[in-house]
Amino acid sequence: MSPFNPVSESDLAYFRSLLPGRVFSGADISTDYDHDEMTEYGHFLPEAVLQAQTAEEIQAVLKYCNERRIPVTPRGAGTGLCGGCVALHGGIVLSTEKMKKVLEVDTRNMTATVEPGVLLMEFPKALEGTGLFYPPDPGEKTATMGGNAMTNAGGMRAVRYGVTRDYILGMEVALADGSLITLGGKTVKTSSGYSLIDLMIGSEGTLGFLTKLTVKLVPEPKVNLSLLMPFDDLDQCISAVPPVLACGCDPTAVEFMEREVISCAETYLGKQFPDTSADAYLLVRLDGPSAEALQPAIDTLTDLALSLGAKDVLLADTDERKESIWNARGAFLEAIKNSTSTMDECDVVVPRDLIPAFVRQTVETGRRAGVRIRSFGHAGDGNLHIYVCRDGLPEGEWKQKVSAVMEELYEAARGMGGQVSGEHGIGHAKKPFLRESVGDRQMALMQGIKAAFDPNGILNPGKIVG
Amino acid sequence: MSPFNPVSESDLAYFRSLLPGRVFSGADISTDYDHDEMTEYGHFLPEAVLQAQTAEEIQAVLKYCNERRIPVTPRGAGTGLCGGCVALHGGIVLSTEKMKKVLEVDTRNMTATVEPGVLLMEFPKALEGTGLFYPPDPGEKTATMGGNAMTNAGGMRAVRYGVTRDYILGMEVALADGSLITLGGKTVKTSSGYSLIDLMIGSEGTLGFLTKLTVKLVPEPKVNLSLLMPFDDLDQCISAVPPVLACGCDPTAVEFMEREVISCAETYLGKQFPDTSADAYLLVRLDGPSAEALQPAIDTLTDLALSLGAKDVLLADTDERKESIWNARGAFLEAIKNSTSTMDECDVVVPRDLIPAFVRQTVETGRRAGVRIRSFGHAGDGNLHIYVCRDGLPEGEWKQKVSAVMEELYEAARGMGGQVSGEHGIGHAKKPFLRESVGDRQMALMQGIKAAFDPNGILNPGKIVG
Repeated sequence: MSPFNPVSESDLAYFRSLLPGRVFSGADISTDYDHDEMTEYGHFLPEAVLQAQTAEEIQAVLKYCNERRIPVTPRGAGTGLCGGCVALHGGIVLSTEKMKKVLEVDTRNMTATVEPGVLLMEFPKALEGTGLFYPPDPGEKTATMGGNAMTNAGGMRAVRYGVTRDYILGMEVALADGSLITLGGKTVKTSSGYSLIDLMIGSEGTLGFLTKLTVKLVPEPKVNLSLLMPFDDLDQCISAVPPVLACGCDPTAVEFMEREVISCAETYLGKQFPDTSADAYLLVRLDGPSAEALQPAIDTLTDLALSLGAKDVLLADTDERKESIWNARGAFLEAIKNSTSTMDECDVVVPRDLIPAFVRQTVETGRRAGVRIRSFGHAGDGNLHIYVCRDGLPEGEWKQKVSAVMEELYEAARGMGGQVSGEHGIGHAKKPFLRESVGDRQMALMQGIKAAFDPNGILNPGKIVG
Repeated sequence: MSPFNPVSESDLAYFRSLLPGRVFSGADISTDYDHDEMTEYGHFLPEAVLQAQTAEEIQAVLKYCNERRIPVTPRGAGTGLCGGCVALHGGIVLSTEKMKKVLEVDTRNMTATVEPGVLLMEFPKALEGTGLFYPPDPGEKTATMGGNAMTNAGGMRAVRYGVTRDYILGMEVALADGSLITLGGKTVKTSSGYSLIDLMIGSEGTLGFLTKLTVKLVPEPKVNLSLLMPFDDLDQCISAVPPVLACGCDPTAVEFMEREVISCAETYLGKQFPDTSADAYLLVRLDGPSAEALQPAIDTLTDLALSLGAKDVLLADTDERKESIWNARGAFLEAIKNSTSTMDECDVVVPRDLIPAFVRQTVETGRRAGVRIRSFGHAGDGNLHIYVCRDGLPEGEWKQKVSAVMEELYEAARGMGGQVSGEHGIGHAKKPFLRESVGDRQMALMQGIKAAFDPNGILNPGKIVG
């Protein structure tokens, strides 16, 4: 028996009184709300969709749903990859899509305060002219900043700058009972009790509903350029990653890409990648105060790459050249999706020196299982994005193969001291792998934390724990 | 009625069978164990002191004490400043002082794994010749790395490098029931469920007992130098902090110091500070790949400081000059302690642009209350160390004045969006101020977390929560 109640007509009437014109039910709900980017993980249409505009509205909705045991699934732009924002147990989807205001840019403290629905692609406009920037840079620019906070998104620049967690200073959060708490603020350090803000970051809306976010900004580097290193084969390419990281050049990004994935992107974008000579590429980005200041790093990396078997080192220091490379890189996920009927995804992270071993493992696993596996990702921080493509496989065979492949990959990652997800999160799709990875004792601790924050379990039920 | 049982002879016999030669009770307990660095907060002699050597011993002791409801107070070097490692409710002190092994330095992944009792002053020896270093740099070098992790210690270099939290990748922790969990590892990013490791960091031994720690290392900067900027008065000095931070020179440290505090240190160390011309000083440290690379920052900071009223800018680029300045800075706490009968301490953190306002507040509060207040600290990250000195005040008057002064300072910090502690922690001494700062709702969440980890409340009872 479900511990939850269905959404009744009187519930809808109450919601409509709270959020006039911003409550949708039945046939008025767009099917966009029944999935995230991974349709493979199923379709779950909520009973109602509510578009909040203020913290007060969110508090009122939560208080009501908590009393009436109605599940509340927080949702930003729906760009997740593990089913984190779908209404697995029905109830309402509470969307932040109308909370898009940048509330403050504080140049003296180098912070910005935003509503949770601000899109990653919109935020830089608010920083124009300040000389400051926000380093987290996930490939998916239509994601919300709130969603990024609640999944602890990573992205391209994490090698040098760290992940979203490293840039969150303050949060305002509505709890399941409707109370509002403020965590952190504009202070840059604290040792003041349990770090509730760090617990909230990456909790995927299961512990509270983010209503406001204060992030750290840093001085914008004046210059960036990229080095594209073509290699004859993947193994040589990926083996170059640990020495590249260790050479002291402080790269912003170290990405690897294979010819097949690049071809997908060329087809998808209708544009040529600037090099066609190689099977595998390492892409290294450098940031700095001037081109001259970066020259020693360029020289060091060039010599190093050539000594490790690179066929060449192409310098991308014009906007046109940089765009042609990074636009391709940014399109990989969509391009792979576009190349197959459906797919499953794995986002494990391993210690950086085990990246070559793990990539070899994925190649071997795909070969043995007889499925097409494509991978790319943040080689520089050990976080690989691995896509298992269904292509023409019949349903039953696909299900069986993808399940075996995933088990094998997660097991290999565990054996290397890795983690289930580097940046995408757990949602509902990765729950079994999280349990296998951390074990029952840690799952019990997480469950205990969940109960302390949300005793009735109304907040995003079925995600991470439970 | 206490929820705990006293330590009996049979308990002691069991402990002795587990840890032969490393169990002390009654008159054999050194009074060193009854306090931390702040004797003002009272003396609490434990019923027994156990010196663990392995995780297995810690697990066995915890399991036993959990079943028999005996309080366990984890303790490193006892250098804390808020009574975090004293046996407030009796029971045993479980010390890591014999767990001092550096277990591994992994240069490929740039990590080190250590036992919790490794001293901050010993650790650099293990890194010699690797070209790597561990940035957290609290003034107290006889502290343990485990203690630093459990208080989320900050230190001198936090402006540029961040705090201890930013350098902890993995932990092995014994829970109250004796089970052992591994959090994180050598991976550099993760979005894999609630961040239990971030919850554990700064939890002051109330949620688990740290048995092993994996930290992140970074390439050691080749050159460092310091700029000492004398000012005619404190207000001018401290007002220079926000522009110094905003000028884009990426300082490693920005400390402020007053003449009176320097004089204390001169007396305490029996050594002269290299400048006697001014009432207040700003000390800015820069790290970089070479002296030449730092020259633009030196020029910018020099021009800026002079334009903001500095009487001069002294470059400290020789070892002798740097030591004479930084040794004085490192001795401030001991020097102030030495200058008064007893003292109380406050370690608030405020947004960086409010540092001048907060320093003015402390001066005004001290003047009005008629007590000597000395302050210094990490101006660059808004974290001030404020010492209220008893000097010759009679007991009653002292208690009344110090209480009023602390209330006023914490209230001022709250009003500025500050936090109770920037890096020292809460222990038992700062609990009332934590509650006032975060409110009942957050305290209830912390209490709920505590109950999930330690249902019998045996781990460091009376600290942070409860």
